[in-house]
Amino acid sequence: MTEREARMSSIDNTVISTRVRLARNIEGYPFPGHFADEKQAREVIRHVASSMSKYSNDFNLYYMNSISDAKAQSLVENHLISPNLLKTRRISAALISADECVSIMINEEDHLREQCIMMGLNLNEAYDRMSDCDSALSGDMKFAYDEQLGYLTACPTNVGTGLRASVMLFLPALSLCGLMQSVSRSASRLGLTVRGSYGEGSEAEGYTYQISNEVTLGLSEGDILSQVHDIVMQVCDMENAQRRKLAKGDNALELKDQCMRAYGILTNCARLTSGELQKYSAYVKLGAVLGFIPIRDVSGIDGLVIRMRPSNITDAAERDLTATERDVYRAEQTGKFLKGLVS
Amino acid sequence: MTEREARMSSIDNTVISTRVRLARNIEGYPFPGHFADEKQAREVIRHVASSMSKYSNDFNLYYMNSISDAKAQSLVENHLISPNLLKTRRISAALISADECVSIMINEEDHLREQCIMMGLNLNEAYDRMSDCDSALSGDMKFAYDEQLGYLTACPTNVGTGLRASVMLFLPALSLCGLMQSVSRSASRLGLTVRGSYGEGSEAEGYTYQISNEVTLGLSEGDILSQVHDIVMQVCDMENAQRRKLAKGDNALELKDQCMRAYGILTNCARLTSGELQKYSAYVKLGAVLGFIPIRDVSGIDGLVIRMRPSNITDAAERDLTATERDVYRAEQTGKFLKGLVS
Repeated sequence: MTEREARMSSIDNTVISTRVRLARNIEGYPFPGHFADEKQAREVIRHVASSMSKYSNDFNLYYMNSISDAKAQSLVENHLISPNLLKTRRISAALISADECVSIMINEEDHLREQCIMMGLNLNEAYDRMSDCDSALSGDMKFAYDEQLGYLTACPTNVGTGLRASVMLFLPALSLCGLMQSVSRSASRLGLTVRGSYGEGSEAEGYTYQISNEVTLGLSEGDILSQVHDIVMQVCDMENAQRRKLAKGDNALELKDQCMRAYGILTNCARLTSGELQKYSAYVKLGAVLGFIPIRDVSGIDGLVIRMRPSNITDAAERDLTATERDVYRAEQTGKFLKGLVS
Repeated sequence: MTEREARMSSIDNTVISTRVRLARNIEGYPFPGHFADEKQAREVIRHVASSMSKYSNDFNLYYMNSISDAKAQSLVENHLISPNLLKTRRISAALISADECVSIMINEEDHLREQCIMMGLNLNEAYDRMSDCDSALSGDMKFAYDEQLGYLTACPTNVGTGLRASVMLFLPALSLCGLMQSVSRSASRLGLTVRGSYGEGSEAEGYTYQISNEVTLGLSEGDILSQVHDIVMQVCDMENAQRRKLAKGDNALELKDQCMRAYGILTNCARLTSGELQKYSAYVKLGAVLGFIPIRDVSGIDGLVIRMRPSNITDAAERDLTATERDVYRAEQTGKFLKGLVS
């Protein structure tokens, strides 16, 4: 393996996914929190949906007050909408692309929250895809924009580009070595935020952290993307240096044992909850990146965890399943998948 | 499988081992607790050892005050001597057969405690082997004997035949169904005792229980053996009825999951303590007898647990191992053995 290939492989085994989102508002309407009535909200939804339909027929429109709770839960679990969008279901909607990479929340905090999620480190690709949608929409409506400030948003922290670029990372070594606080402080000095995977203030589950830009004002979109990209690359290098230390350190046997047992449980259990899969799969990934378990590419495990979310299992079954039925199905699929992955 | 074969197989999967022991004292000497001096103790040891050497050259003599603590620990772990024998090491010894089935403790509570341990349900075989030794010894020394009472012993509970026959059983189903108290009460009414595997008052580890006769007086040796044999057969049948219920009951999935996870841990772990092996191997045996894990004969697992005791691992390695080295060795051997066992 060349040095470049090794670095790419280490990035594949560290970066989980990339998310880029733009906050936009339509001139002439109050922010969603200040609508005069539901009629205004419906006008905004219709306006956005009709503009998008001119650009692409690849999007489905979901009115939040006309989808089932199960469907709503599924959209949240897959990060296609925020939990906040469901707090005002009478006035909110979402446009979601068929491949579920792009979603546009309508009447969340802003009129539009356009986002694109891609697996791996793909900041520019995600931004470009998002930006194409944004350009199409801006050709059909006038976004609230100030020459000095840039795009205007409900919350001042989003004013300017309205761009938030975030990358989800698997950082077990930095986490186990107690270095996340120091990583977080360094990132903060560069105007970036590090947090647990499920948004602000939440604990990092399964050693998963999100790095994103804090500042949206005074920087170009390109600057933001390259700043996030650079720090992600640095954090990947730091993580890898710690992984090498861990794999040979005093606690290597203890870690190996923990990882191997997790693999043993996932490949043998008869039922498995979503939380257990999250917890044990993090150990399996750790075992793989430390060289204890012969799995070269751990990114497939992230895909498995997503497919095994309760709502995705129910969707795949095309019928209501009990929690126990889901746990049995999850155990079977997980065992089969992981056994197939070991080289 | 015929009905008889099925019953035999169920006994193989329930009975772990058989132990028969005789308590004897030599006329003309006070009981070990009342020796006038160490000289008396040494005379008793020499007398017994020299008598045995006339009968068989298959026995090794161990003076308790001249073996290492590690060796003493090993003898206790393998149930060849009792912990009590080590409380008075200056005056005690043991004669142990090369195959480690027969051991004769000298100057424990009584001058002689002759015992024979065999795997499986082998009351008559174990008694016969023991009895041959006993006859040989009695030809060479005069045992304290009363026409009315029978053999005289330090503790009145052993007076009479001096015989205790005990069978070690794996009773997960009766235990999980909360029926052990009732089994214990029924046995008690017949003059038998049920207790956890490591002697009086100890908790049952790994669903392991010992059934033995309480009464040694007023019954012939043959009566005692057939009484113990009969109740063991009854308990085996009860255990099997409960196993069939458990395998199809409401908690079957939960049990299957627990057993499969234990199997997953034992076949994948990188280190394993003796206590963990005991705990998880009980679940694997349970999974096997309930039909969840394709292992037909669980008795091999009992042998593994014995071989993996700390002192036996050290003996096999023929050098001092650290606890960690033993745990790594135990993990490797256990994984290999269990994988080989699954049909």
